Amino acid sequence: MAITVVGSVAYDSVETPAGKYERQLAGAATYFSLAASYFTDVRVIAVVGEDFGHEQEAIFKAHKIDIQGIERAAGKTFFWQGSYMENLNEAKTHQTDLNVFAGFQPKIPDAYRDSEFLFLANIDPLLQRRVREAMPHVKLVAGDTMNYWIKDHRPALLEVLAGLDILLINDTETRMLAGKNNLVLAARQVLSLGPKTLVVKHGEYGATAFFAPDITKGDSATAIRAFRAPALPLDEVVDPTGAGDSFAGGFFGYLASQRDITPGAFRRAMFYGGVMGSFAVERFGTERLQHLDRKEIDSRFNLFRELTHLE
Amino acid sequence: MAITVVGSVAYDSVETPAGKYERQLAGAATYFSLAASYFTDVRVIAVVGEDFGHEQEAIFKAHKIDIQGIERAAGKTFFWQGSYMENLNEAKTHQTDLNVFAGFQPKIPDAYRDSEFLFLANIDPLLQRRVREAMPHVKLVAGDTMNYWIKDHRPALLEVLAGLDILLINDTETRMLAGKNNLVLAARQVLSLGPKTLVVKHGEYGATAFFAPDITKGDSATAIRAFRAPALPLDEVVDPTGAGDSFAGGFFGYLASQRDITPGAFRRAMFYGGVMGSFAVERFGTERLQHLDRKEIDSRFNLFRELTHLE
Repeated sequence: MAITVVGSVAYDSVETPAGKYERQLAGAATYFSLAASYFTDVRVIAVVGEDFGHEQEAIFKAHKIDIQGIERAAGKTFFWQGSYMENLNEAKTHQTDLNVFAGFQPKIPDAYRDSEFLFLANIDPLLQRRVREAMPHVKLVAGDTMNYWIKDHRPALLEVLAGLDILLINDTETRMLAGKNNLVLAARQVLSLGPKTLVVKHGEYGATAFFAPDITKGDSATAIRAFRAPALPLDEVVDPTGAGDSFAGGFFGYLASQRDITPGAFRRAMFYGGVMGSFAVERFGTERLQHLDRKEIDSRFNLFRELTHLE
Repeated sequence: MAITVVGSVAYDSVETPAGKYERQLAGAATYFSLAASYFTDVRVIAVVGEDFGHEQEAIFKAHKIDIQGIERAAGKTFFWQGSYMENLNEAKTHQTDLNVFAGFQPKIPDAYRDSEFLFLANIDPLLQRRVREAMPHVKLVAGDTMNYWIKDHRPALLEVLAGLDILLINDTETRMLAGKNNLVLAARQVLSLGPKTLVVKHGEYGATAFFAPDITKGDSATAIRAFRAPALPLDEVVDPTGAGDSFAGGFFGYLASQRDITPGAFRRAMFYGGVMGSFAVERFGTERLQHLDRKEIDSRFNLFRELTHLE
């Protein structure tokens, strides 16, 4: 089933201990849609400037990603410059030019309206909410956010959370959103804000899904169930940019490819999230995500299984 | 098969956000031997002072732990006072009185000499080495160390590492020992120092075992194989003291209980390590480790399986 994703399509300039690159196609919606495209049909809603051309379009088209929802506006595409020279786990931002993104008003093409899955990548929660409300019939909606929205746009963010099936954020964001340091207590607090499932991304330590108690199945109101997926121990992280968005794309893409979202399908989706995140960081930018095939992906999935399973 | 463990038996005074306690029986060898005692026979080599009495002996004896290797010396038992008020992952030391431990000369009772497993808990590498050399016929030897020995006693520590089958340390210690920030590269470097297996403990994120390449099986010299075991997401960590030693006790105790150390047995041992660590931190000091039974332990083992397995 098709996924519609709304988020940023951008140019990044990035420096890491392994090297650097200038103005390459990036952005959360780009990483997400490339990762998800190996599993299902993906449709993108975003805005770009006049500097977005055939070369960039071709990257999406090579993965059969629908980009009729990528609007061309007068001006330049969103630009981010950052580095990871001291700490591969945390980007240092040197420059952020919102450009055309500052006036982004998501428009949903008619052809996207039968999408059954919706992913709200990390953008202004007011826009996330608007897209969510414009697509009331989706079967499953997941989203991301970041410290900036949690700190300074809380009321708007809370309205988004109330409408989410799955929230995917990292450890720091979970603790900040809940105002609690213990991760389980923080997760319980976040789940009380609306999401039925919280996926906490731990970077090199993998990710944990926390499920809201299902009182119809006899869970107590404070019960919490969880599932932990590993990350692959890598001897070189070339570029951590987009790892979280690639996780989300692998995770949600796999879920959307399944007829029913069983507990088993959900667990496999967590593994595929880790798999796509591990590919993303092996090369600069989106390079590795552009050139994969399903066989490589499934072979790495099996590696994740061997890494964690008793037999 | 029996394990001999050499290490500290101590009194701890500890404060955590959940409360505090004064002068309770503790020390690496105590946590280790209590955790391991649920799986196999354990024999302790340590030194205590005149303040170590029947009450403390009874704790070991209730678990059939052999303490004829615990020497009584004139003076007071090793004392440590610490707190975890700001960060549950890192102890702040307020006082360390080595007392009788300062002159510790490990003596190995004859009855211990048929032990097939040896655990060198975190003590002066000179003493670790002496015990190792006095027990040349053990089948498997594992050990722990800490930042102090890595930084200031490196030559002595390197001699210990050369004789280890398994080294168990945490992330920070691994990076410090190898002088490398990437965990896989650091692990590869540590494995080149002697241990055939390195178990890196990640605290709330579980633990990873890294196996040295087996060139007789066609591994390349830089190949690395790994296994990741989870930690249990806990809604309250009452007292983190001894978590790592309890992990080591569960891990090595389970291994020693197996007729053959197959890859499957090793993986289950990693899970039992996490299980015993998760119990340890649920109550103050060694309280929880003192009052377990194998049924509770195996029930939590199954929880760890559910937490990580696809089906």
